[in-house]
Amino acid sequence: MRLWDKGFSTDKKIDHFTVGNDRELDLHLAKYDVIASKAHAKMLGKIGLLTEKETKELVTELDNITAKIENGTFVIENNFEDMHSKIEFQLTLALGDTGKKIHTARSRNDQVLVAMHLYLKDELAEIKSMTKTLFDLLLNLADKYKRVLLPGYTHLQIAMPSSFGLWFSAYAESLIDDLYFVDAAYKVADQNPLGSAAGYGSSFPIDRSFTTKEMGFETLKYNVVAAQMSRGKVEKATAFGMASIAATLSKMAMDICLYMSQNFDFISFPDELTTGSSIMPHKKNPDVFELVRGKCNKLQSIPNQLTTVINNLPSGYHRDLQLVKEIIVPAIQDMKACLEIMSFSLREIQVNEGILEDPKYDYLFSVDTLNELVQDGMPFRDAYKKMGQEIQDGKFTPKRNLKHTHEGSIGNLCLEDIRKKMGGI
Amino acid sequence: MRLWDKGFSTDKKIDHFTVGNDRELDLHLAKYDVIASKAHAKMLGKIGLLTEKETKELVTELDNITAKIENGTFVIENNFEDMHSKIEFQLTLALGDTGKKIHTARSRNDQVLVAMHLYLKDELAEIKSMTKTLFDLLLNLADKYKRVLLPGYTHLQIAMPSSFGLWFSAYAESLIDDLYFVDAAYKVADQNPLGSAAGYGSSFPIDRSFTTKEMGFETLKYNVVAAQMSRGKVEKATAFGMASIAATLSKMAMDICLYMSQNFDFISFPDELTTGSSIMPHKKNPDVFELVRGKCNKLQSIPNQLTTVINNLPSGYHRDLQLVKEIIVPAIQDMKACLEIMSFSLREIQVNEGILEDPKYDYLFSVDTLNELVQDGMPFRDAYKKMGQEIQDGKFTPKRNLKHTHEGSIGNLCLEDIRKKMGGI
Amino acid sequence: MRLWDKGFSTDKKIDHFTVGNDRELDLHLAKYDVIASKAHAKMLGKIGLLTEKETKELVTELDNITAKIENGTFVIENNFEDMHSKIEFQLTLALGDTGKKIHTARSRNDQVLVAMHLYLKDELAEIKSMTKTLFDLLLNLADKYKRVLLPGYTHLQIAMPSSFGLWFSAYAESLIDDLYFVDAAYKVADQNPLGSAAGYGSSFPIDRSFTTKEMGFETLKYNVVAAQMSRGKVEKATAFGMASIAATLSKMAMDICLYMSQNFDFISFPDELTTGSSIMPHKKNPDVFELVRGKCNKLQSIPNQLTTVINNLPSGYHRDLQLVKEIIVPAIQDMKACLEIMSFSLREIQVNEGILEDPKYDYLFSVDTLNELVQDGMPFRDAYKKMGQEIQDGKFTPKRNLKHTHEGSIGNLCLEDIRKKMGGI
Amino acid sequence: MRLWDKGFSTDKKIDHFTVGNDRELDLHLAKYDVIASKAHAKMLGKIGLLTEKETKELVTELDNITAKIENGTFVIENNFEDMHSKIEFQLTLALGDTGKKIHTARSRNDQVLVAMHLYLKDELAEIKSMTKTLFDLLLNLADKYKRVLLPGYTHLQIAMPSSFGLWFSAYAESLIDDLYFVDAAYKVADQNPLGSAAGYGSSFPIDRSFTTKEMGFETLKYNVVAAQMSRGKVEKATAFGMASIAATLSKMAMDICLYMSQNFDFISFPDELTTGSSIMPHKKNPDVFELVRGKCNKLQSIPNQLTTVINNLPSGYHRDLQLVKEIIVPAIQDMKACLEIMSFSLREIQVNEGILEDPKYDYLFSVDTLNELVQDGMPFRDAYKKMGQEIQDGKFTPKRNLKHTHEGSIGNLCLEDIRKKMGGI
Repeated sequence: MRLWDKGFSTDKKIDHFTVGNDRELDLHLAKYDVIASKAHAKMLGKIGLLTEKETKELVTELDNITAKIENGTFVIENNFEDMHSKIEFQLTLALGDTGKKIHTARSRNDQVLVAMHLYLKDELAEIKSMTKTLFDLLLNLADKYKRVLLPGYTHLQIAMPSSFGLWFSAYAESLIDDLYFVDAAYKVADQNPLGSAAGYGSSFPIDRSFTTKEMGFETLKYNVVAAQMSRGKVEKATAFGMASIAATLSKMAMDICLYMSQNFDFISFPDELTTGSSIMPHKKNPDVFELVRGKCNKLQSIPNQLTTVINNLPSGYHRDLQLVKEIIVPAIQDMKACLEIMSFSLREIQVNEGILEDPKYDYLFSVDTLNELVQDGMPFRDAYKKMGQEIQDGKFTPKRNLKHTHEGSIGNLCLEDIRKKMGGI
Repeated sequence: MRLWDKGFSTDKKIDHFTVGNDRELDLHLAKYDVIASKAHAKMLGKIGLLTEKETKELVTELDNITAKIENGTFVIENNFEDMHSKIEFQLTLALGDTGKKIHTARSRNDQVLVAMHLYLKDELAEIKSMTKTLFDLLLNLADKYKRVLLPGYTHLQIAMPSSFGLWFSAYAESLIDDLYFVDAAYKVADQNPLGSAAGYGSSFPIDRSFTTKEMGFETLKYNVVAAQMSRGKVEKATAFGMASIAATLSKMAMDICLYMSQNFDFISFPDELTTGSSIMPHKKNPDVFELVRGKCNKLQSIPNQLTTVINNLPSGYHRDLQLVKEIIVPAIQDMKACLEIMSFSLREIQVNEGILEDPKYDYLFSVDTLNELVQDGMPFRDAYKKMGQEIQDGKFTPKRNLKHTHEGSIGNLCLEDIRKKMGGI
Repeated sequence: MRLWDKGFSTDKKIDHFTVGNDRELDLHLAKYDVIASKAHAKMLGKIGLLTEKETKELVTELDNITAKIENGTFVIENNFEDMHSKIEFQLTLALGDTGKKIHTARSRNDQVLVAMHLYLKDELAEIKSMTKTLFDLLLNLADKYKRVLLPGYTHLQIAMPSSFGLWFSAYAESLIDDLYFVDAAYKVADQNPLGSAAGYGSSFPIDRSFTTKEMGFETLKYNVVAAQMSRGKVEKATAFGMASIAATLSKMAMDICLYMSQNFDFISFPDELTTGSSIMPHKKNPDVFELVRGKCNKLQSIPNQLTTVINNLPSGYHRDLQLVKEIIVPAIQDMKACLEIMSFSLREIQVNEGILEDPKYDYLFSVDTLNELVQDGMPFRDAYKKMGQEIQDGKFTPKRNLKHTHEGSIGNLCLEDIRKKMGGI
Repeated sequence: MRLWDKGFSTDKKIDHFTVGNDRELDLHLAKYDVIASKAHAKMLGKIGLLTEKETKELVTELDNITAKIENGTFVIENNFEDMHSKIEFQLTLALGDTGKKIHTARSRNDQVLVAMHLYLKDELAEIKSMTKTLFDLLLNLADKYKRVLLPGYTHLQIAMPSSFGLWFSAYAESLIDDLYFVDAAYKVADQNPLGSAAGYGSSFPIDRSFTTKEMGFETLKYNVVAAQMSRGKVEKATAFGMASIAATLSKMAMDICLYMSQNFDFISFPDELTTGSSIMPHKKNPDVFELVRGKCNKLQSIPNQLTTVINNLPSGYHRDLQLVKEIIVPAIQDMKACLEIMSFSLREIQVNEGILEDPKYDYLFSVDTLNELVQDGMPFRDAYKKMGQEIQDGKFTPKRNLKHTHEGSIGNLCLEDIRKKMGGI
């Protein structure tokens, strides 16, 4: 059952090579194909290409398919190329000639495009929401541990006092930037491509504004060639958004893996969240965070992978674009899994207090001591030399009573300002 | 003259290896270092760490440096590590002790960060503006050539009628999506990082809101650790934005190179914009567009390159981050050169009329003929079979009187709607 | 059943997140885990850590498992983390205490490493063999069509006469270069890592030379830390090899898609190998080659993806490395599928003769005509000007009797030399 | 002075856009252009297209140019597009008509191709030699410090005893694998492409075997289309080789940065090789190694960058390929700088002894203690449980007298075997 069938069967080898794992991936998208089909059917009714009765029947039957998808009984058997073939078959089975009419004034290209846009909108919204959940958790942790100090490193060398308050909320504020890209991707997705047919429009007097409204798109991708061009592009936009979040999570996971090492020993997690060894009871392998790091690094490679696949293709549809689906769908699953596990695990983080009491961290306080001299009027470079001399002569005693008061510093985390900034998006 | 100098000179080999081409790159950034230094000096005056007189002197001297930068007489000699050293040297030369005081309550880290943010804001704004110029040109060309037809391809096979109107405006509308990412990058850049010092803040009672306002930032990057994390991240954000535009330009350039081939022969350019050969007078090598394609493809690799450099680094400054500058600055130059040359060249495009008269394009019209049957009431799949039969029997005559009327189709380009969509960003 | 189990069960969420699709991927690797286990058991017997009887029992039971793997009845149930757990369970079930002893003097790390090396050796050998099959086919096609001319393009502009002989054998000779990288990858894989234990060796007096010989490795990866480092590295080496072949196949697929376009019309394929449309009977969509191009482009992104995942990890095992498996195994499947389908499809290629008779190709012959002047003694630059004048004056008549005789030119394809070059590797 | 000049001057904007920084890059390649030109001239003499006198004059004049290149007085002025134009101009200036004849039977394409192949051969040979120097140093350091123990980590958790002997020689042995790829790249480069003209050969009876031998190539790239295809491909091959070495150096640099942190404190370097701070005298910023890491990570992104630029281009020359030069030449400079600085710096490494005396490393020895039980006959899993119990009950005392004797372990580094393996390539 190939839609382009012209009487002879294509070689099986070819069939196997070209279909790939579309059926499996389409289970993620089928719901959206049905939503778009319903909007399309209603529009065909509105412009008179379907009777009111036909429209009603199609909508009812599509609702039945939705029900099946939702309760998990929708299956794409091996004799169907993809969800589109299966859904059309189902409609024809139920409604005869009327079922066939759903394909009026659209093409499979159209269907894939619009289903992908709807799917990505939903997924991007969920990713944004999960990111906000993690953001809230990080701010709460920052508040909870705002007085627990931590060494701050530059070049991995002990440099300046930091705090868990700073550390947690740094990642929170950083996530806001990432959401700007998620929002950009959402805007790319939030434009109705339906009606582009094979990529050049058609002579049917379709009403694209109607379907745009019906499916809840903010606007149309007006130009039908531009609509076709969004294939691959909307997925890459999504990948940019996810790569941004992934970079932040990966960096935090790297910190966590380091901080859990016995050589740092800043944080820990309950046994349930680590893996261990009976004969090395000190070992708390941070597998979860290593996998977050690994998966998020893989996610960061997705935009490039998509570029490699779609780049230098002239305008118009090419079958290469089919591969985009098998890249973006699992990537989205990975992104959500990482966001979920981060929120799930960080809730249980155990923060060690008194870290800075170890004398190896004494020099952390040298800069603050220097700054006091400066605030008392000594030019910076002179104060710098004086301090250096004292330290060299062994006369330095760290003053541990930190008074960092400026915006965004240890003593003034501005958590509410950060929360407000996030609120704006 | 190393800022971290502690009395002994570092080996020359090391010096050469570590400084790289910072001096050259810093010529792009020096202007912004001075802007930030002025804001910092004024703030130090406001909070009483500088006297009014000192502040005034510093501001005046910084203005002198700006003048030098603008008239091209600002030079970073080889005995200076970078612009920061040079500018501080200049201030100290002119103002003695007062010059040294500019470094109070900030670090070089701070300076690089804030200069980069200011630089990227300016460049992103210019890129956006140049993109809009190209957008306007494309819409004008679409309008001018809206009646000139073009074959539309799928799988590089002749498929459906298209038009130059569609083709030009498709790239225009596509650029709007790209600007969502440029805007996202701008938002990442438009947050004042100054005050993070070495990445952990300081005990100085600095007023970061003041410098934020003074430099025209929309908001602060509050958390000082987050501010430090934006090193590499803000450049990658910019690279995402540029990669988006670059993908669109590259695709258009690919089309142009194809369309200029004798096997398509859809468009041409004046001799001044192509390269040729006396003995092959037909040859009009589209070097400009090949280089746009090549440069834009290189631009698409920049986000990945930045990721490779900064990924898996724990939080805190690392010297690796210095390399980000040598990646992003030339990339921005390339992006602007491509945008400029595209606007410059496309203005001269010569469009061939009557392309579709060639009989090899006859079947382009088969789908429209089919659709007429459907609009007259025949179910799609039946009409499809009937048409197939007629064609097989040699009874098909193409109807070339296209009536594509729906939104975004050949006959209804919605150029004003597209223009309005762009207007919204 | 976790090997690191220490008495309490890990949270299910964590379990699900960390196991991933290891079970599925391990079906590709299980065969090699058994081979390595047999070699390990024999070695333990040789050094006296197992009795002769124990060794024999283990080997017999491992052979039973091999039989199951080969007849498809080996299954890794959900209550096993991976193949290693399952195989060890199977051995313990069958042999009690003796089964447990297989794990003496090795670790799971060891097992994964050595199984991956053995797996990659086999796959690289198969990929090389499939590449040689394609190479042979291409040379045969080059020979068969050596007299059929084709336009040669530069800048996609018609430039010089080429031939199908040149075109086919160019890709053949290019594949030789790719195999240098496959061979390099093979050398990386062909070093026994077994014995590195958790990455730092052990106090057991194991005989690594024995297992090296037993498993057919060319040499050892001596240093145990280096052996551990090959995790990720050997997969990347393989990915480099595949990316090389993929670039060649992708480029050829691009040519094919172009040449099948009605605007070129140089080649065709039987209907079984293309997809079409009843109403556009001219359409022969080259889906197979578009998917070869797409998949091969995806393959070209794999080295970078692996780099992103493993880069900047300090030495020693990290759980991130588990993800490497889910990247490389499907990539190998894709590579083999592309090689197979290329050989399968190209066998059926239909080459159009008489292409150059079209007058648009006349100027193809201008260079040869010019060269005759030069061979008759005129300095190149002068001849160039003279010819240019003639053409401008409309006095040019193409001489189509090509006499390209030098090595590697149309008239002297050197197919046997190319075959000999391939023979050397 | 454009070689393709046809009477009118191309717009300056276009000129600036298309020439790029070719002149600067060509200074690296000019030497090789001259070598190839000499071989070409001699060959033209041999086949009678030049007289003996002309050949001699050309060779002499080319030798003069070589002398200028070597003493640094060869300059490519702004009125020349590239080195090819400049060299041809020089020859014509000196020899009149004879100078013009050098261009007989070749094209600029030819020249760039062959010069690049010769250049890459030289650079790859130098890179290999520098890698071997580093290899030797690492083995010497391994031998020197073979008795100094180091904690071995898995998951960044303290796991097993390691040693500086293992650590240094692991990177040495790993470099051998990298050289397999350098060798593969060398083989790709070591094939004479000269004679492909514009990519399709010519009617001149040139003798390509003669130039192959004259220039010292191992073989020809026979097929002229394949020769043209090597543009971009030979650079990518080189980039693969460099990326392999870079991954190893980057990983070692990551270890070094970590080990220099006060939280590890395993190694140090003299002040001359680090950067510091007067007020934080403990700070020894490993800038050199951070930059090695950063540059090597950038190097790892080069294959992907080249792929992005050249991918999906149909066969035949495209101007995009010009950009390959500006990517590969600086990358080679970076690679050599990193290799040089690593050898230069590691010579001075200071290794801390007695690291494992810190009680936090006690459990490192638990596995060895366990293994003794197993060697005394207890099944592994049982011994594992027994040990776990002892540790839990606080009855564990580490036995620090390591007896690792197997090949590649702490006590048996097999340095000579590793040296022999390297000797084989």
